Amino acid sequence: MSVPPPGRFSLNQATTQHWPLADVVAGCVAAGVAGIGLWREPVAEYGLRRAATMVRDAGLTVTSLCRGGFFTTEGWREDNLRAIDEAATLGTPVLVLVAGGLPPGSRDIDGARRRVADAVAELAPHAASAGVTLAIEPLHPMFSADRCVIATLGQALDIAERFEPGVVGVVVDAYHVWWDDTVYAQIARAGARIAAFQVCDWVTPLPEGVLLGRALPGDGCIELRRLREAVDAAGYTGPVEVEVFSSEVWARPGREVLHASVAGYLRHVA
Amino acid sequence: MSVPPPGRFSLNQATTQHWPLADVVAGCVAAGVAGIGLWREPVAEYGLRRAATMVRDAGLTVTSLCRGGFFTTEGWREDNLRAIDEAATLGTPVLVLVAGGLPPGSRDIDGARRRVADAVAELAPHAASAGVTLAIEPLHPMFSADRCVIATLGQALDIAERFEPGVVGVVVDAYHVWWDDTVYAQIARAGARIAAFQVCDWVTPLPEGVLLGRALPGDGCIELRRLREAVDAAGYTGPVEVEVFSSEVWARPGREVLHASVAGYLRHVA
Repeated sequence: MSVPPPGRFSLNQATTQHWPLADVVAGCVAAGVAGIGLWREPVAEYGLRRAATMVRDAGLTVTSLCRGGFFTTEGWREDNLRAIDEAATLGTPVLVLVAGGLPPGSRDIDGARRRVADAVAELAPHAASAGVTLAIEPLHPMFSADRCVIATLGQALDIAERFEPGVVGVVVDAYHVWWDDTVYAQIARAGARIAAFQVCDWVTPLPEGVLLGRALPGDGCIELRRLREAVDAAGYTGPVEVEVFSSEVWARPGREVLHASVAGYLRHVA
Repeated sequence: MSVPPPGRFSLNQATTQHWPLADVVAGCVAAGVAGIGLWREPVAEYGLRRAATMVRDAGLTVTSLCRGGFFTTEGWREDNLRAIDEAATLGTPVLVLVAGGLPPGSRDIDGARRRVADAVAELAPHAASAGVTLAIEPLHPMFSADRCVIATLGQALDIAERFEPGVVGVVVDAYHVWWDDTVYAQIARAGARIAAFQVCDWVTPLPEGVLLGRALPGDGCIELRRLREAVDAAGYTGPVEVEVFSSEVWARPGREVLHASVAGYLRHVA
């Protein structure tokens, strides 16, 4: 059977959560996938340098590393400096930052947001010298309290624009921004700040905790192609990462999920 | 025991979901509460005119009626015209509108939003002649797909501002708007458009379906007093409705929940 080439498709390894890293790499090579988005925990488990070598030897491009951020937790500075170094070792130009939620017991969301801006300012020089772009990812507002106080692309850009585009950028993740009536204007505003573009789909009902209820591209209600065309029109020419947090998807075999991700990308995004 | 007067406090009857209407009314009178927010279903069950008479005879003000809207479902026009008449019969100046989500299988969120604006335009003349304000309520973006395509106060105002302030206004519900970094600017913009102000609190983890995970004022992370001061500064002098959708709160006796609502309002909102 002839399969169309997956083009800009990149597999974010979170989509195949329980697939061992070596199998993910082999699976991508077998499927003709050129890009892979990695997570720090499975990379550390495999061994950072060993993982970097394996991925490079396989001919894969590491499209992003998830993730730094969580600036309201203790030890954030050292952890984020390490994350920048890990991204450089893996050869990826993009470190995804998820800001973190409110500190326990706090109601001060403005304060938490200022802290994100301050933290990015502290990290920027090290990122610049490492050649890694800090990519601020706004998460859906349902995560504002406990996971990410940056809730819109506009907010992410308000911070990113204080820095050089190559040093601080933004992640456009369709799942987190699709509902925003200003998203197309903000994507146009973002332009060269767009460091990464991620897709999955929105389905209801949301599960308890709301984290693991996402769907493969095409299985929900997001205008994925329209968003992809918008980031392209803004000048983005990089990879399109399929990143799906889903207990249902995670229960399926890795290879099957990879093929379904490529198919969903080709049919609903490309 | 001497209890402070509840002032602008109004009990939205959804907070005491399983308390029969006659008991809610008697409970409010006994607690010195002057305002009550009603829902169409329990009112219809009790009998519209009978409910209107009971509430009036008890000396209570009906601060709002929930709800019209759901403009993507069949029969929305007739249903909303009836809702306007019901509000007039109950003597409340405010009909809360929840826009509705995407039609089944649709990805066209812009189209659904245009439909909301068109529907409000169709209903406005009848509302004006009935003396009822159509109060567009933005719901949290986690409901955009299946419950309400109007996700921000800014969007609600974009529609409301096409009409006279007494005819179309907005609801500011703290639970739905607290995460928005533009909310204080939008509240100032809203001014006399603010037809209702509702409060409850945000807690995590969200339950499956995300509808029934709200908390009594003070039990979560929302800056409720700051939001109340902002609507006041915008010129709002109306009631503050405590409206809590929560399976935990709903499992408690109505009288206890009413007293806890008043206490939470006095301590964290007033």
